[in-house]
Amino acid sequence: MSTGRMEAFSDAVIAIAITVMVLELPTPHDTTWHALRDAWPVLLSYVLSFVILGIYWNNHHHMLQATTRVNGPILWANLHLLFWLSLVPFTTAWMGENAFASVPTAAYGVVLLAAALAYYALQGLIIRDQGEGSIVAAAVGRDLKGKLSPVLYVIGIGLSFLSSRAAVAVFATVALVWLIPDRRIERGLTAARPDDGGE
Amino acid sequence: MSTGRMEAFSDAVIAIAITVMVLELPTPHDTTWHALRDAWPVLLSYVLSFVILGIYWNNHHHMLQATTRVNGPILWANLHLLFWLSLVPFTTAWMGENAFASVPTAAYGVVLLAAALAYYALQGLIIRDQGEGSIVAAAVGRDLKGKLSPVLYVIGIGLSFLSSRAAVAVFATVALVWLIPDRRIERGLTAARPDDGGE
Amino acid sequence: MSTGRMEAFSDAVIAIAITVMVLELPTPHDTTWHALRDAWPVLLSYVLSFVILGIYWNNHHHMLQATTRVNGPILWANLHLLFWLSLVPFTTAWMGENAFASVPTAAYGVVLLAAALAYYALQGLIIRDQGEGSIVAAAVGRDLKGKLSPVLYVIGIGLSFLSSRAAVAVFATVALVWLIPDRRIERGLTAARPDDGGE
Amino acid sequence: MSTGRMEAFSDAVIAIAITVMVLELPTPHDTTWHALRDAWPVLLSYVLSFVILGIYWNNHHHMLQATTRVNGPILWANLHLLFWLSLVPFTTAWMGENAFASVPTAAYGVVLLAAALAYYALQGLIIRDQGEGSIVAAAVGRDLKGKLSPVLYVIGIGLSFLSSRAAVAVFATVALVWLIPDRRIERGLTAARPDDGGE
Repeated sequence: MSTGRMEAFSDAVIAIAITVMVLELPTPHDTTWHALRDAWPVLLSYVLSFVILGIYWNNHHHMLQATTRVNGPILWANLHLLFWLSLVPFTTAWMGENAFASVPTAAYGVVLLAAALAYYALQGLIIRDQGEGSIVAAAVGRDLKGKLSPVLYVIGIGLSFLSSRAAVAVFATVALVWLIPDRRIERGLTAARPDDGGE
Repeated sequence: MSTGRMEAFSDAVIAIAITVMVLELPTPHDTTWHALRDAWPVLLSYVLSFVILGIYWNNHHHMLQATTRVNGPILWANLHLLFWLSLVPFTTAWMGENAFASVPTAAYGVVLLAAALAYYALQGLIIRDQGEGSIVAAAVGRDLKGKLSPVLYVIGIGLSFLSSRAAVAVFATVALVWLIPDRRIERGLTAARPDDGGE
Repeated sequence: MSTGRMEAFSDAVIAIAITVMVLELPTPHDTTWHALRDAWPVLLSYVLSFVILGIYWNNHHHMLQATTRVNGPILWANLHLLFWLSLVPFTTAWMGENAFASVPTAAYGVVLLAAALAYYALQGLIIRDQGEGSIVAAAVGRDLKGKLSPVLYVIGIGLSFLSSRAAVAVFATVALVWLIPDRRIERGLTAARPDDGGE
Repeated sequence: MSTGRMEAFSDAVIAIAITVMVLELPTPHDTTWHALRDAWPVLLSYVLSFVILGIYWNNHHHMLQATTRVNGPILWANLHLLFWLSLVPFTTAWMGENAFASVPTAAYGVVLLAAALAYYALQGLIIRDQGEGSIVAAAVGRDLKGKLSPVLYVIGIGLSFLSSRAAVAVFATVALVWLIPDRRIERGLTAARPDDGGE
C-alpha cells in the first residue's frame, strides 16, 4: 500500500489541530494592551504547541519521505499518534487559561509524552517493515533524541508540581532539541538518490 | 471519472470531523485531577468516536484503493456517508456532556447506524459498477462484518434505554470487530498487483 | 498554470465549511427526544446547507475536470465563490437558531444568490479562456439551471417576508434541481476521452 | 526534497484559517437587518482578512510553482509564515468585535506586518537556494511591493491610535496593491515553459 493517502490524512489532521488551536484563544474582552498582556499564558501556550506540532509535521514528513510502503499496523500506529496530537489543543487551552497551574501543565506533559511514545512506536514499526538496512533505519540510527524526549517529558511532568515554569521550560527545551530537523534522513535520502533535485 | 478528488474530499471531511471533536471538549474550569476525572464521559466519548472515524477512514481508504472509477451515484452515496460521519461530533458532544444519558446515547447509536448503512450502500454501488469479478467484490465477499454491524447498532440503541453503559459497550464492540482492517482487500490488491511495492 | 492546486484549495475550503457547520449546532442541554425535536430548525438548516455545499463541490469538481488550465482572473473568481460559500455556515446558524425568522432566512437566500452568481461568473471566465468549442462550453450549453437558480433565489428571498417556510421550500427546490450532477460534462468528457476508465 | 507536501500543508493551514474565521463571527441574537448592520465591523473585518489570506494563498501558490525544491530552513520559514497567518482569525475577531478600537486594530496590523516579513524571509531563502538566475529571482525582481508593504503596515499601526478607520484603510490599500497577482512569476513560468498548457 502506498504512503500517499496516509501522508495526506496525517497532514490534514495536524494542519487542523495546529489551526483550530487559534479558536481556543479567547478573544480579549478589553481593548487595551493590558488585555493582551494578561493573555500571555494563553499566547505562550499557543506558540509552544504550534512549534511542537510543526516539529511533528516536519519529522513525520521526513520519515514518510524515506518510507516506501505502509501496512495495517503502521496505519493504526499512525492513527494512534494522531489521536494524541489531536488532544494537544485541549491541554493547551486548559494550561493556558489557567496560567500554567500544576495539574493542567502536568496533563499537557502527559499528552506530549504519549505523543512521543506513539511516534517512537510508529517509527519502530516502519523500521521493522523497511528492514534494518533501509534509509529510515540508517537515518534514525541510535535515535538519541527519540529516547531522550520521553525522559525529559517525565521530568517535566514531575516538575510541574514544584514549579510549573520549570516544567514549561523543560517542554520548550525538548522542542528546541527537535527544532533541528532530521538532517540524517535528508542526508540518507540524498545519498540514496544523489542526482534527484526534486520529487 | 477518477477516484482521486473524491478520496481527497472524503479524507478532508473525515480529518476535520475527527479533529474538530476536540473543540467540543469543554475546557475544565477547575485545575485538579478531579476536574479531568469528572470529564471522563466526555473523554471516553471522544476516544470511541476517534476510533470509529479512524476505522471509517481506514476502510474507506482500502475500498477506494481497489476502485478504479466513480460515477454520479457513487459520488452522492459518498456524500451521504460523509453527512452521517459529520454528525458524529454533534452526538458525541451530546452523549459525553450528559454522561451517557439514555436519549443522547441512543441518538449516538442512530447516527452510527445510519453511517453503517450509508457505507454499505456506497460499497454496493461500487461493486455494482466494478462488477462481481472485481477486486472490491472479491475482497468484500460475504461481508459478515458489514451485515452484522447494523444489527449490533440496533441492539445497542435498544439497550441504551435499559443500561447506557451496556449500549456503549456494544458500540465499542462493533469498533473492535472493525479494528482489524480489511485485509481481504489488501490481499486482493496484492494478488492483482503482486510486484507493486507502493505507488 | 495547472488546475491541481486550485482544486485542492477549493476542496479544502468546501470540506471545512461543510464540516464546521456541525460546530455551530448547539448541543441540546436537555437529554430528551423533545430536545432533539426542538432542534429541528437547526438540524433542517444543517441538512439543507450540507446538500447545497455538496452540490457545489460536485459541480465544481466536474467543471474543473473539464478545465485544462487556470489564470489570474479565474483564481480570483474562484476565491470569490469560496468567500460566499464560507459564509453559508454563518447564515445557516442564524437561520436555524431563530427557527426560520424572516430576516435570517432572507439573508440565507442572499448568500446563496451571491454564491450562484459567483459560480456563474467563474464558469463564464473558464469558458472564455477555454474557448467556445471546449468541453466545458459544450457541456454547459444553454445552462438553463445556472440561469434559473438566481431567479428562484430572488423569489425565495422575497417570499421569506411572507412565509419563511415557502422560502425554504424554494431554496430546497433549487437544491433538488441541481442534485442531478452535470451529466453533460461527464458525457462531454467521455466523448473526448472515450477509452479512459480513470485518471 | 520536493515542494509537494509543503504546498499541501500550507494550503490546508491557510484554507482552515480562512474558513474557521467564520466560526468567530458571533451569530446575531436579533433577527432584524439592524442586527446584521450592527455586525458590520465584524463582517468588514472578515472580508478584509479573507482577501488578505486569499492573496497569501495566491502568491504562495505562484512562488512555489516556480520553486523546484525545498530544504530545512525553507520548511521552517514556511511554518513561521503559517504561524502568523494562523493568528489572523484571532486578531480579526478582536478587532471586529470591538468595532475597530485602537489597540485591537494595531494588533491586527502587527500580525499582518509579521506575516509580511515572514513571507519576505521565506522568499529570500527560496531565492538564495534557487540561485539569482532562477525563475523566482527573475520574477520577484526588485520586489517593490514586498518592500513597500511592511512600511505601509507600520504607518497603519501608527495611524490606528489616531484614527482606526484610516488604519483599516491603509491595511485595505496594501491588500489592493497585492490583489494583482504575481504576473511576473506567471510570465517567468510561461517564458521558461512556453509550450506547456498546464501540468
